[in-house]
Amino acid sequence: MENLDFNQHTSKKYNQELEKIRSSLLVMGGMVEKQVKKAVEALVEGKSKMAKKVIKKDLGVNAMEVQIDEECTQIIAKRQPAASDLRLVYSIIKSITDFERIGDEAEKIAKCASFLIDENYLGNYSHEFMKLYQLVAINLNQTLNALARLDAEEALTIAKKDEIVDLAFERLNNDIIRNMTTEPTKLNLLLRLSWSAKALEKIGDHTTNICEYIIYLVKGKDVRHLDINTIKEEYF
Amino acid sequence: MENLDFNQHTSKKYNQELEKIRSSLLVMGGMVEKQVKKAVEALVEGKSKMAKKVIKKDLGVNAMEVQIDEECTQIIAKRQPAASDLRLVYSIIKSITDFERIGDEAEKIAKCASFLIDENYLGNYSHEFMKLYQLVAINLNQTLNALARLDAEEALTIAKKDEIVDLAFERLNNDIIRNMTTEPTKLNLLLRLSWSAKALEKIGDHTTNICEYIIYLVKGKDVRHLDINTIKEEYF
Repeated sequence: MENLDFNQHTSKKYNQELEKIRSSLLVMGGMVEKQVKKAVEALVEGKSKMAKKVIKKDLGVNAMEVQIDEECTQIIAKRQPAASDLRLVYSIIKSITDFERIGDEAEKIAKCASFLIDENYLGNYSHEFMKLYQLVAINLNQTLNALARLDAEEALTIAKKDEIVDLAFERLNNDIIRNMTTEPTKLNLLLRLSWSAKALEKIGDHTTNICEYIIYLVKGKDVRHLDINTIKEEYF
Repeated sequence: MENLDFNQHTSKKYNQELEKIRSSLLVMGGMVEKQVKKAVEALVEGKSKMAKKVIKKDLGVNAMEVQIDEECTQIIAKRQPAASDLRLVYSIIKSITDFERIGDEAEKIAKCASFLIDENYLGNYSHEFMKLYQLVAINLNQTLNALARLDAEEALTIAKKDEIVDLAFERLNNDIIRNMTTEPTKLNLLLRLSWSAKALEKIGDHTTNICEYIIYLVKGKDVRHLDINTIKEEYF
């Protein structure tokens, strides 16, 4: 496997360009991480203004997607990247779509939060909801670290943990659905809780996708659609 | 705007490679279109075997995504595409993600179909559900045509129609939710219907994304995250 040093080109400008898209991606990742955190805080702690801010700030996430995409096309056109440089650009092109959709899911949670706050209902779910959020948030945070350090082994470990997120979501969602039958008058509120939980689960899916792109970037192997639990580090 | 003739390179092989990824994308598009059709047919007509086939066939869609991605990286590495060639490759890289996710949504509908068939329940929704499906199916089919003919104006027209899909979904979903309160014993069945309707709405969103990539490919303008209804053809 070749050396993953994106600072090795004779053109200083090229080094800078690759560094710029990498750091832009990390900035975008940090931005959506914060969006998710604030959306959940708005939901669990009933912060109406915070929910509105999250919804407004999604425009900033969208703008970053367009900007980084533009920078990536520029690099392909001008620099004709090959080998690991090409994998870097390719992984970034793919990852920004997932980061942008994580932003969309945060926006959805914030919209549900607004609805639930207006109805003055949060139910008894805040504890279980926070537990699900924490699983998702840890994975997302570790993914950003793995991206910064180009750590494929770590990315593989995180991807394997998505199963735990799925199980936690199923448990919480089944509980919410059970309550819908016993408290049909609260159906509209419980549906919003269910949608918010689903949004967290989808953030987990997007995080896994990004982990797969990190593995591709570092190791040159496309592990999408493989059973991630059967992949061992020796596979690389 | 330059001539969009992907057959103009002095290298015959390069022409063939670009043609190949274009036609592979169209094959993948046709494949997911059929998956959606069969998933809905399974749901509405209670065809259990068909639902199972759709679920199984999603693996084929996934495999196509990986294969086309691989071909795109090869072209970038070997051919150093520029201008419209680069936009073609870029649009394909982006579009296959959306096609793959349309495949995922078809799989979701097929899973809901399996559940509903087992419970021997389809409810009174088949008519409304088919109406929503038809709106989505027409847009998807026209998008594939616009992609084949590289027709940006048509892509813009289709993207504008997604609003109608959203409204039809909202109407159907509100109706399903209303019934949940009056028939709480059927909650689990009604939830599956709601998830299936949501899957159709998301297929509409992915179709819109692909339309935006067609516009980018043909016109070189990134219209994502703009208010599509304010864009006139003169904008190009």
